[in-house]
Amino acid sequence: MNTATTKLLRNNRCLFLAYDQGFEHGPTDFDDKSVDPAYILSIANDSAAYTGIIFHEGIAQSYYDKAKETVPLIVKLNGKTSLHPDEEPYSPQLCSVDEAVRLGATAIGYTIYIGSSYEGKMMEEFSRIEDEAHTKNLSVILWAYPRGKNVIGKEQDKDVVAYGARIALEMGADFVKVPYTGSIENVQWIVRSAGTTHVIVQGGTKVDEQTILEEATICKKAGVTGMAIGRNIWQSPDPIAISKKLAAIIYED
Amino acid sequence: MNTATTKLLRNNRCLFLAYDQGFEHGPTDFDDKSVDPAYILSIANDSAAYTGIIFHEGIAQSYYDKAKETVPLIVKLNGKTSLHPDEEPYSPQLCSVDEAVRLGATAIGYTIYIGSSYEGKMMEEFSRIEDEAHTKNLSVILWAYPRGKNVIGKEQDKDVVAYGARIALEMGADFVKVPYTGSIENVQWIVRSAGTTHVIVQGGTKVDEQTILEEATICKKAGVTGMAIGRNIWQSPDPIAISKKLAAIIYED
Amino acid sequence: MNTATTKLLRNNRCLFLAYDQGFEHGPTDFDDKSVDPAYILSIANDSAAYTGIIFHEGIAQSYYDKAKETVPLIVKLNGKTSLHPDEEPYSPQLCSVDEAVRLGATAIGYTIYIGSSYEGKMMEEFSRIEDEAHTKNLSVILWAYPRGKNVIGKEQDKDVVAYGARIALEMGADFVKVPYTGSIENVQWIVRSAGTTHVIVQGGTKVDEQTILEEATICKKAGVTGMAIGRNIWQSPDPIAISKKLAAIIYED
Amino acid sequence: MNTATTKLLRNNRCLFLAYDQGFEHGPTDFDDKSVDPAYILSIANDSAAYTGIIFHEGIAQSYYDKAKETVPLIVKLNGKTSLHPDEEPYSPQLCSVDEAVRLGATAIGYTIYIGSSYEGKMMEEFSRIEDEAHTKNLSVILWAYPRGKNVIGKEQDKDVVAYGARIALEMGADFVKVPYTGSIENVQWIVRSAGTTHVIVQGGTKVDEQTILEEATICKKAGVTGMAIGRNIWQSPDPIAISKKLAAIIYED
Amino acid sequence: MNTATTKLLRNNRCLFLAYDQGFEHGPTDFDDKSVDPAYILSIANDSAAYTGIIFHEGIAQSYYDKAKETVPLIVKLNGKTSLHPDEEPYSPQLCSVDEAVRLGATAIGYTIYIGSSYEGKMMEEFSRIEDEAHTKNLSVILWAYPRGKNVIGKEQDKDVVAYGARIALEMGADFVKVPYTGSIENVQWIVRSAGTTHVIVQGGTKVDEQTILEEATICKKAGVTGMAIGRNIWQSPDPIAISKKLAAIIYED
Repeated sequence: MNTATTKLLRNNRCLFLAYDQGFEHGPTDFDDKSVDPAYILSIANDSAAYTGIIFHEGIAQSYYDKAKETVPLIVKLNGKTSLHPDEEPYSPQLCSVDEAVRLGATAIGYTIYIGSSYEGKMMEEFSRIEDEAHTKNLSVILWAYPRGKNVIGKEQDKDVVAYGARIALEMGADFVKVPYTGSIENVQWIVRSAGTTHVIVQGGTKVDEQTILEEATICKKAGVTGMAIGRNIWQSPDPIAISKKLAAIIYED
Repeated sequence: MNTATTKLLRNNRCLFLAYDQGFEHGPTDFDDKSVDPAYILSIANDSAAYTGIIFHEGIAQSYYDKAKETVPLIVKLNGKTSLHPDEEPYSPQLCSVDEAVRLGATAIGYTIYIGSSYEGKMMEEFSRIEDEAHTKNLSVILWAYPRGKNVIGKEQDKDVVAYGARIALEMGADFVKVPYTGSIENVQWIVRSAGTTHVIVQGGTKVDEQTILEEATICKKAGVTGMAIGRNIWQSPDPIAISKKLAAIIYED
Repeated sequence: MNTATTKLLRNNRCLFLAYDQGFEHGPTDFDDKSVDPAYILSIANDSAAYTGIIFHEGIAQSYYDKAKETVPLIVKLNGKTSLHPDEEPYSPQLCSVDEAVRLGATAIGYTIYIGSSYEGKMMEEFSRIEDEAHTKNLSVILWAYPRGKNVIGKEQDKDVVAYGARIALEMGADFVKVPYTGSIENVQWIVRSAGTTHVIVQGGTKVDEQTILEEATICKKAGVTGMAIGRNIWQSPDPIAISKKLAAIIYED
Repeated sequence: MNTATTKLLRNNRCLFLAYDQGFEHGPTDFDDKSVDPAYILSIANDSAAYTGIIFHEGIAQSYYDKAKETVPLIVKLNGKTSLHPDEEPYSPQLCSVDEAVRLGATAIGYTIYIGSSYEGKMMEEFSRIEDEAHTKNLSVILWAYPRGKNVIGKEQDKDVVAYGARIALEMGADFVKVPYTGSIENVQWIVRSAGTTHVIVQGGTKVDEQTILEEATICKKAGVTGMAIGRNIWQSPDPIAISKKLAAIIYED
Repeated sequence: MNTATTKLLRNNRCLFLAYDQGFEHGPTDFDDKSVDPAYILSIANDSAAYTGIIFHEGIAQSYYDKAKETVPLIVKLNGKTSLHPDEEPYSPQLCSVDEAVRLGATAIGYTIYIGSSYEGKMMEEFSRIEDEAHTKNLSVILWAYPRGKNVIGKEQDKDVVAYGARIALEMGADFVKVPYTGSIENVQWIVRSAGTTHVIVQGGTKVDEQTILEEATICKKAGVTGMAIGRNIWQSPDPIAISKKLAAIIYED
């Protein structure tokens, strides 16, 4: 395990605060508070619950001060807007590994839409990024999200999600971020398929607090390394409280 | 804020004289006077109203003397003619950052057609240009114009335009040029979505003088940094007078 | 104006002998004499009427002796055969700028099919060629020919041809070669749209001698810099005589 | 024959343990034991039956310790998931030759889908990889698998498979991995078409033990250099036993 | 004429032994003898009839010993299988010029399918190869074969074949290999269209001995430099005899 990966773990577990939704969904996810990246950083700092925060390049440039922030930076290298809902989506690289290094990143993130007809193009791009990032001592996180007409309706199926997790292992990712698949047994098979690659489960759309805490408990029992959560935190009326509750579940022995 | 960006501001506001229409629309926008780039430069010099002038490479080469001009040069790096009205438009890069530096540019401009199915290709290209331009101490202006069948009829919708402004922030642009969306509240949300990125509103097709001055007043109240105007200036019978009136609105405290 | 451009002018006017038809149309344009590039060179030498001769790379390699020829060489860098009549044509680059330099070229030529759906691809390619050619002290000639379903039937329209001439200015060409549009007024607007870029009119298919001389007269009166003529010369029974008559019209004060 | 190729041979024959199915088919090929790459390595080590083991980059990174493993490593450079069953498949490069060298590889593998409309694209990619791998003293193994509508139903035809084997020779591969074509005569023609290139036959889907041993016997008699087998080993209840039986057939004089 | 071109001539004429059919048609062209490249080399050596032998990279690597062979090597750089009969064919580059140099090549060969909608792509590729090969003192042979729906049925028409020969001249090839067009007059026009480029006629499918000798006689009378023949040699019962008869026709004064 490289030293960058170690920095993203606390008690061998992780919790990432996701804030790439301004790119992926646009400002409609935000209100007057959450539209401001400084507010998100304050949640991370005040809750002390996170081992990583996920930004695109521009947000990191203007809001993340690498000389003083304590939560490690994860720069998401590719992205796609929701303005054109392609049946077979592709997410292009929009930030170089070198720029991520300049911004003070500990890790980079990259999405492959598993099952899309552009899957191979994203795999090619990711394979080069993975090599370069490891050479430059960054940790590598693969977003493995099923998309496209061949997997439609199966985005949370055990076998499809496990395939995505396996790809992460076969391609050398340190972490793989996957959808939640709904039972301890399912999540266990995904963890097993990923081998030495750390599995992290995404939070997804805003649900009630009890639901997200139960998901975290199931994931923990199934052996995942952690979770990456955004809307369920900063759309919450009390982001600090929910952050601390999740941290208690994820990091406990 | 880099020093190039500072050069484009007066009292923390900006007014840009746009003259890329010969490329985007052809000479039909011009009459015997406005077809001549020297005439446009004389408007900028004589009115003293502008903090930037927008040219394509060839016009800058032949008409902008970097040793003697006082209005900063903005070189538009990509462009598309109106000869083939593509449903999903793409605007290719037609000038390098290095050439812009040689021409004496203070900033470069680049258009992303937000919503077009080629959006991702333009984003990729812009992401490389943004890095290179910042490395070479240029300011970076993103033209974020909604286009394509998924946003048709919504080119001036608050949420679509705010999405474009957000993309500019997420990708690290210093300025974002957007369509006018019609009310103080709408423009305010766009400014808020853009965070630390300066919002500038485009002038668009020729309207009567009162209309463009009212738009400027609304934009100013909503908190934009400035405007970029072309046809409403050089198609006017008195370009100097209208330039001075706009400057009075934009730069006043 | 760079020194290479100056070499292509006589009394600030130019006349180019075009011989790229073997590539564009095939040997069917030729008879037993004109199929031989040495014959074409002899017309240029014996008439003393030309300020440039247009060849593709291979012809220049085998027939143009840079140590002894007196008429400046213009190497056409891209080309397209007539074997597959594409509705939306593209003309690929087939010779590098460096190779043109080795061959002793004073200028390079490049075609953009204005209006074609591949227009943007040719513009991108031309923009890189223009930069490189100017860096290496060559003059740059843009062939701006309207093609494609959006301009079909308008290949000689004033506004379409003026748009092509304007693109040449906006992109930094030294010369733009355009179709003949048929009246002094039309050609004047094209010259005005091209600004500091020299306009040269193409000769086109073989017409009777009186017609081509009248065209030359109209072009001269409209303010063009010159003409580029091929078939009307070397398909003529007396190429030397027609060359001298054209030269008299073009170069006279 | 380069020294890397020699390392993959025992008594001028070879037997490779294939484990790229996690990438090509997903974890559905695995059970709780075979999902673990460490288990596969233990089969190779404990049976002493193999002259090579086939992994993708990520598995090699995390499980293959080049300082201590004795079975030579073959890194598969391209791959394709089964999530989108393309009529005309393409398999992109996902690992560089340099990365294979760093991982301690003795050989690289690459698939060309012979007959696919993307065949030419894979051939281009393979031609560059073959040059680079040979320059860096690696052996080169071509997977030549017929795919696509023009060869559907003929994936095991003598002439189609022989064509694939010939391509391997014409392109400079050291080994070619081909489907089993079912008779000594057929396999002999394939071996003859491959000239100096070593032919290895794939094991394919799980069959009963007697069947796979008979195939090995036929292949041996036809003059192949060896086989590459995966599922018929690690889906077997006794992988060590079947490995030793195959080795006895393949390596015997 | 460069020195490499000179090496391919005997009495200013040439005869090439073609053996790229294993790539273009597959082993179905071969029998048990002709499938072996060593047999083909023995024909060249024993007949002393040839000024060049045509191989793909892999065959040259394994069978052509540059330290001892006397017949010059021509490496074919691109190729296409017959497994997918594309209406508009493209033949990708599969060997670099540098690799051809390492193999001891005197010349490289490259096919452009004249008339194919991919013609431009092959021309672009060939233009770069031609420059590089000449820089490295290799001779350059263009295979100019009419293909595609726009020339179907006209693959041996005088004007179409002459156009291909002209392209070879316009692009700087030293030799152009063309189909046989059937009369002295036709072949003469092709030779004239090719200017300083040497015309060589292909042998094509196996015909009876008298026919191929008559074709050679007509070609010789029409002024071609030579022929490139494969199947009519190594599918013949007496390859040495037919080779010598052809040589007598081609090389005689």
